[in-house]
Amino acid sequence: MNSKMKAPLEGIITPLVTPLTDDDTLDLEGLERLVEHLIAGGVHALFVLGTTGESQSLSYGLRAEMIRQTCRLAKGRLPVLAGISDTSIVESVKLARVAVENGADAAVSTTPYYFATGQPELIEFYGHLVPQLPLPLFLYNMPSHTKVSFAPDTVRRIAEDPKVIGFKDSSANAVYFQSVMFAMKDRPDFSMLVGPEEITGECVLMGGHGGVNGGANMFPELYVSLYNAAKRADLKELHRLQQQVMQISATIYTVGHHPSSYLKGLKCALSLLGLCDDYLAAPFHKFEQPEREKIRKALLALNPALKLRP
Amino acid sequence: MNSKMKAPLEGIITPLVTPLTDDDTLDLEGLERLVEHLIAGGVHALFVLGTTGESQSLSYGLRAEMIRQTCRLAKGRLPVLAGISDTSIVESVKLARVAVENGADAAVSTTPYYFATGQPELIEFYGHLVPQLPLPLFLYNMPSHTKVSFAPDTVRRIAEDPKVIGFKDSSANAVYFQSVMFAMKDRPDFSMLVGPEEITGECVLMGGHGGVNGGANMFPELYVSLYNAAKRADLKELHRLQQQVMQISATIYTVGHHPSSYLKGLKCALSLLGLCDDYLAAPFHKFEQPEREKIRKALLALNPALKLRP
Amino acid sequence: MNSKMKAPLEGIITPLVTPLTDDDTLDLEGLERLVEHLIAGGVHALFVLGTTGESQSLSYGLRAEMIRQTCRLAKGRLPVLAGISDTSIVESVKLARVAVENGADAAVSTTPYYFATGQPELIEFYGHLVPQLPLPLFLYNMPSHTKVSFAPDTVRRIAEDPKVIGFKDSSANAVYFQSVMFAMKDRPDFSMLVGPEEITGECVLMGGHGGVNGGANMFPELYVSLYNAAKRADLKELHRLQQQVMQISATIYTVGHHPSSYLKGLKCALSLLGLCDDYLAAPFHKFEQPEREKIRKALLALNPALKLRP
Amino acid sequence: MNSKMKAPLEGIITPLVTPLTDDDTLDLEGLERLVEHLIAGGVHALFVLGTTGESQSLSYGLRAEMIRQTCRLAKGRLPVLAGISDTSIVESVKLARVAVENGADAAVSTTPYYFATGQPELIEFYGHLVPQLPLPLFLYNMPSHTKVSFAPDTVRRIAEDPKVIGFKDSSANAVYFQSVMFAMKDRPDFSMLVGPEEITGECVLMGGHGGVNGGANMFPELYVSLYNAAKRADLKELHRLQQQVMQISATIYTVGHHPSSYLKGLKCALSLLGLCDDYLAAPFHKFEQPEREKIRKALLALNPALKLRP
Repeated sequence: MNSKMKAPLEGIITPLVTPLTDDDTLDLEGLERLVEHLIAGGVHALFVLGTTGESQSLSYGLRAEMIRQTCRLAKGRLPVLAGISDTSIVESVKLARVAVENGADAAVSTTPYYFATGQPELIEFYGHLVPQLPLPLFLYNMPSHTKVSFAPDTVRRIAEDPKVIGFKDSSANAVYFQSVMFAMKDRPDFSMLVGPEEITGECVLMGGHGGVNGGANMFPELYVSLYNAAKRADLKELHRLQQQVMQISATIYTVGHHPSSYLKGLKCALSLLGLCDDYLAAPFHKFEQPEREKIRKALLALNPALKLRP
Repeated sequence: MNSKMKAPLEGIITPLVTPLTDDDTLDLEGLERLVEHLIAGGVHALFVLGTTGESQSLSYGLRAEMIRQTCRLAKGRLPVLAGISDTSIVESVKLARVAVENGADAAVSTTPYYFATGQPELIEFYGHLVPQLPLPLFLYNMPSHTKVSFAPDTVRRIAEDPKVIGFKDSSANAVYFQSVMFAMKDRPDFSMLVGPEEITGECVLMGGHGGVNGGANMFPELYVSLYNAAKRADLKELHRLQQQVMQISATIYTVGHHPSSYLKGLKCALSLLGLCDDYLAAPFHKFEQPEREKIRKALLALNPALKLRP
Repeated sequence: MNSKMKAPLEGIITPLVTPLTDDDTLDLEGLERLVEHLIAGGVHALFVLGTTGESQSLSYGLRAEMIRQTCRLAKGRLPVLAGISDTSIVESVKLARVAVENGADAAVSTTPYYFATGQPELIEFYGHLVPQLPLPLFLYNMPSHTKVSFAPDTVRRIAEDPKVIGFKDSSANAVYFQSVMFAMKDRPDFSMLVGPEEITGECVLMGGHGGVNGGANMFPELYVSLYNAAKRADLKELHRLQQQVMQISATIYTVGHHPSSYLKGLKCALSLLGLCDDYLAAPFHKFEQPEREKIRKALLALNPALKLRP
Repeated sequence: MNSKMKAPLEGIITPLVTPLTDDDTLDLEGLERLVEHLIAGGVHALFVLGTTGESQSLSYGLRAEMIRQTCRLAKGRLPVLAGISDTSIVESVKLARVAVENGADAAVSTTPYYFATGQPELIEFYGHLVPQLPLPLFLYNMPSHTKVSFAPDTVRRIAEDPKVIGFKDSSANAVYFQSVMFAMKDRPDFSMLVGPEEITGECVLMGGHGGVNGGANMFPELYVSLYNAAKRADLKELHRLQQQVMQISATIYTVGHHPSSYLKGLKCALSLLGLCDDYLAAPFHKFEQPEREKIRKALLALNPALKLRP
């Protein structure tokens, strides 16, 4: 494992949006601004090609390019995790090779997501995949998108291979997360992370290791501060910061009418903040002017001092 | 509102099992033992006719009897909440009258559960129900059973009527719970409770008011202690107690192959602990001997000093 | 079994709406008009207290009244089936007794619908219920409302009791229906019916016995004619009638924004046709004027000669 | 459009399995045998890279190879459709180019399947995709795998582009299929097909154009005969053949415990029939010996004269 990354990985791991100028072209300047913004904001690791990174909407060439450029820009200043989730094991392994060749620290993989697998099939699948990977792996639970959830005991079984070093849960199901925590209780080196930023606080209070929080693309300091408050059990400060996180959740991620509202709102806000282009890869399109105005107002309600682009 | 009950209601509200000897007869001695056991264990309120109480499986006559007897046995020593969830508003109102006549402090109602309602229909429904109720109401979110979830803004809208005094969420979705908390942030008197005992700790740490936890039927002190540890932010003690709660969850509630495993395991354990009969109302049946032995072993693994019945 | 009812029951079995004037009062005159309308229209049986009859929204007293009045009005001119679906086996059995005492020919029961049952639990449940019933039983598959589907082999197992005489499937899943047909292929006396009127034609063409079609409340002749065309394999006529059925489906049942649109549209149309009141029991409310105008236009588009009430 | 393909496309369109010897290698000899077997059996078109073809499990290189080889082997004797379903529009368009360069007649595309799209987003997506395609397109509804269903009106809207020439529905929902038929009633040239072989008969009887039936890989004559019987409204013969189709469904596709049972059973049967290797691409594995013996018995029960490999 790359020496930069401790076990367990802790803190705010930012799932980078993929700045784009069209369906198949990176907004490289935006990506550079974003990476510097995140590092300046104190986040603990970068995660490219997750759901927030629209990985599945990108061509394989562009996915490889996103790994390459992010690793180049990060310059080893913090760990980089690379999403290799795919429906084809062959393509997953290829992406993992690109990741390791460019200095990424770990790969991240959801369950396969076109065919639904049973739990024994999931164990078989990872028994087939993990030995082919040239770097450590985080499991990524995302049942709303993949239709399949790792059973707690399946996590335990897959993680018997020491190359499997952590788990990210985006189910939002706190009972489930506690059940995986309990199943992994004898593995203090195993990183337990949650996706939704609305629950990073409670995850850390209960003994989890951090959050993979999309909002950190916009406001990295906020999420890092919230993580730190939870880590030192400063509940008063945590509750104060949680209000801000909930306001972001309630006003930036809910402007549209579909589950894509999160992605569209986040990219729109990043564009207004001057960080990167808000082009979304197909099947989605960026917000039009009326929605953009709502996001603008929501950002100013959060912080009237923000300087926003037109 | 009954003077015994503070606003917001806080602590461990035990959702009583309904002790039965057949589909339509209460195990009254068992109920008496159970009520005394819970009060001795320090729980903060009793809740009859919830999901754990198999309310929907009981005849209307038996539901009324369960309210009557529990209120009689509780003797005003702690608040009693009565489930009035039903597919028929007429029957819900009748149950609410029984509840108030017997001294219950509040009613509890899920969404209607045969027909799925849209959110505007849900607001209309409660606008129709609440004025007919002679006592305060808790909303009860139970989408796995009712197919419908109260949107956070729907909770806020329904709770504009001051008779609506709290919310119990059994969805296990922590993002959702935080969203309802955020929607209700200007109502400090409004009680925010979670159902699953695996997440009472984090609920309270994040500012929620407690748990409606089935496991408290067996071990009331454990859940009360966990609540108290969370309330005073004693994370070390909380983590220690959480391990016990998770062990109960992983070994008592998962012996069967269906979602009924929770109910069957809980009633079987109560029978082994000598508290009440483990008869389950149709459509379910109690565990047979092989499953009963697994529950016995699970109880002894939790605490070898427990004295169990054959 | 009542001598009026042949085995298998075939044809158009109309699931009656329950005409209401408020949440707990029958529109008796409307019910009488409706029963005469249906018998004049040639339907083969009446089914009260199904989903279309809002059974779950009615008090137990009103359910009993609806059975009593419909049996009285039908005067033995055609078979009457009575819904006894409930979450409580005790209440189901009581309703079945009311049904037999008033001369109903059979009972109809969905799976229990608050708690989700596994297939072995479902077999156990019916093994417990059927012997307590004083009349024959149709199984009613309605997974969108009950969350549980009878597995084909479960139907076969439950139907080993000769009191179980038929199956109504409202899943709309044609592969599933064919699978149950195949599982029951050695029981030519067992009635195989579909709920959705959009597929009665193909059900009958493939060897099924008919449809339990809500639209027959409005236009009984249409559905009877479609059934007859399918029965004699007159595809040209069937396709012609199917267009009318689909137009009803597309224009009468889709005016609202929620799954309740079917019920609201149907009752609104019955009111416009002068058959009965359009009051809906809670949790629903009847259409307001703008939606009522859409239903009026849809009815006139179907048949400009229809005389509608204001 | 290729002159070989009539509008609407009618009959049995076989969704080819992809014969494999490992995760990334075609069983070319098997593929050749399979293509000849299907053409000899009279099927009306070939469809490569569908769900039955494990398309999502294959690398992009292998998907292109499968298109190339099948077109080469088919030699223009019947239309070839190529699946281009993907989460990335860029990769879909690339596959479509491979298809047209190799002489395929049409492309087939599901909704995107990682991100769930709303209906307006789906219309936008196809408005973006279709103009980039160099060949006609069939829409493929597969909600069990993609989580999203094309609303009937969405099909109508997308099909306003004349390059969109047909619709394949694998939802099994017959009400839905009738609704799409009704929405497309003014487009007699638009091909309306169902996926599940259990309902090809009723689809054709009701005016649909045929089936995309995986079982035709094994027994092409059976499915062609069933199609022909339905087409000429010979119900007696149709019912006889339907029994065989249902026996295949009930005994070949249900041996495993997961949704993959269909694929595993089908490939196992093809191997026993000497047609091709039964290797399944990850995440799945082929049946072991005990399941293979069950498939053998099921095949012999269908036809004792079948000569099977060990």
